[in-house]
Amino acid sequence: MRVVITGAAGFVASGVARALAEDPACLGAPVTDLVLTDLTEGRGAGRWITGDLADPSHIAALLAEPADVMLHLASVPGGLTEQTPTLGRAVNLDATMSLMAGLADQHRSGGPLARVVFSSSIAVMGPLGKGAVNETHPAAPAISYGAHKLITEIDIADLTRRGEIDGVSLRLPGIVARPAGASGFGSAFMSELFHAAANGGEYACPVSPDATAWWMSRHTVIANILHAARMDTRALAADRALLLPALHASVADLIDGLAAHYGAASISGISHAPENGIEAVFGRFPAIDAGRALSAGFTSDADIPTLIGNVGVPAREAVQ
Amino acid sequence: MRVVITGAAGFVASGVARALAEDPACLGAPVTDLVLTDLTEGRGAGRWITGDLADPSHIAALLAEPADVMLHLASVPGGLTEQTPTLGRAVNLDATMSLMAGLADQHRSGGPLARVVFSSSIAVMGPLGKGAVNETHPAAPAISYGAHKLITEIDIADLTRRGEIDGVSLRLPGIVARPAGASGFGSAFMSELFHAAANGGEYACPVSPDATAWWMSRHTVIANILHAARMDTRALAADRALLLPALHASVADLIDGLAAHYGAASISGISHAPENGIEAVFGRFPAIDAGRALSAGFTSDADIPTLIGNVGVPAREAVQ
Repeated sequence: MRVVITGAAGFVASGVARALAEDPACLGAPVTDLVLTDLTEGRGAGRWITGDLADPSHIAALLAEPADVMLHLASVPGGLTEQTPTLGRAVNLDATMSLMAGLADQHRSGGPLARVVFSSSIAVMGPLGKGAVNETHPAAPAISYGAHKLITEIDIADLTRRGEIDGVSLRLPGIVARPAGASGFGSAFMSELFHAAANGGEYACPVSPDATAWWMSRHTVIANILHAARMDTRALAADRALLLPALHASVADLIDGLAAHYGAASISGISHAPENGIEAVFGRFPAIDAGRALSAGFTSDADIPTLIGNVGVPAREAVQ
Repeated sequence: MRVVITGAAGFVASGVARALAEDPACLGAPVTDLVLTDLTEGRGAGRWITGDLADPSHIAALLAEPADVMLHLASVPGGLTEQTPTLGRAVNLDATMSLMAGLADQHRSGGPLARVVFSSSIAVMGPLGKGAVNETHPAAPAISYGAHKLITEIDIADLTRRGEIDGVSLRLPGIVARPAGASGFGSAFMSELFHAAANGGEYACPVSPDATAWWMSRHTVIANILHAARMDTRALAADRALLLPALHASVADLIDGLAAHYGAASISGISHAPENGIEAVFGRFPAIDAGRALSAGFTSDADIPTLIGNVGVPAREAVQ
């Protein structure tokens, strides 16, 4: 079957591509055509179709042959979307809607019912209170990135209800450890803490030690995306947006875990210089109730040592 | 100032256009250019720019001169959208998003901050329970029309948060009395009851007498749209979607009211042949809590005699 991965040179998607290339049968049916797309080629082994999702002719090229599975993982990150709204809208909203409409057209004209896995975000929910949160928490995104992800979730749910695609939206938490210096993410501190500990550098963390966040290793998010690509979706019924079982932990606890893993000296360069904007948006996450996703077979990094073990030695190279 | 009205040949929008033509100062500042658009010209007095919103060049024509107020009232109705999803998506989703993006661009490039009034729908909410409903009820649209309206609400709220438009989304209830035989609306029975009583015809109503709905006269919805176009939006803060104060009443009570207004004989041709699909979606509305809209100055048809009086003699002519 044909699998298309967008954003395939990126941090999460490149790992998904590698997993599929290494085990082409891991989705049940063999992957006979792995189409990888991004602005430029990454290192993944597959059939690259490079181009800009903001260009309608590139969307058309991706949809020229019927897709059985579409892993739509490309995004302009949240911070960058706030700064360059035209770019963010073109990719995160317009291109995404065109892809979904094209996949629905594919099925209406007799082609396969495409399994769509969409990398949504916990940013769809907006400010959270102190109580535990699950998927029923009202969505009130505070940034355009979250608004665009929420819009896509609604579109995917509606096209799925119509029987024109078979979609699953995964509300991804902070994925660690992104490459050092990866730009555009307000949650970058979550990854930078790993780099500081692994490499022993100086790092002024923009949130306080008691900031709490939702963490997931790249290893675990890749497993969850592959699970979404092959799962029996009937158990999800009409609600196709899932809050993944992230690990809820404070920055202080993460730093303690890094010290235990890398040695007490490893964290000596970490200081805190909280920025209100970052702390308020990315450092006040309450407990997470991901029971629905756990029941559906999704997994978590169970605790901080597991998270740090799954992260392994964080990659230093730049990933676009 | 320039006011643009989409769907201007339609039932609600043509009344708004007439009100603005009759009292060009009713929005505070005088309307010096009233741009009306629809597939073909209607009878409204203004500057018509006819065209299809599904045609990007028509969107560009509408946005060629800066708009101070955009009353985006055009829609492909819900029943028709389910049957012709490509048309529904092109108008209710793609064209609407293009209009909003264009208005945001207008402001980013130094033009006016456009007041946008969007005719959303109670269909954004999906199935309701038995308790009273307000804007905080989770939105889970059961039809594409509702999904597309919800998506637009989110986009409008986000662009408003960014300070690029100043938008208000009004979740319209069933508006009565649409012209007899108006097609594409699953809620058409709400209007047909008025026609049957006014004209004494036979009518097999597709919901039972104890069906409950949310009713608003065209007179009142026009007043509410004009209020949204001129109100001080600061009181709305970030949440720009309002549930209008519709009249909650059963079909039996409406028929009793029609008998009192038109005479007992007027309703003798009305029978009931409930259709499950219509009854379930359009005939199970619980009490409505529109306190937020009432506080913001929106109005209702206070009771059934007022509703019937505001409807007046229902129009028989076809309106597209």
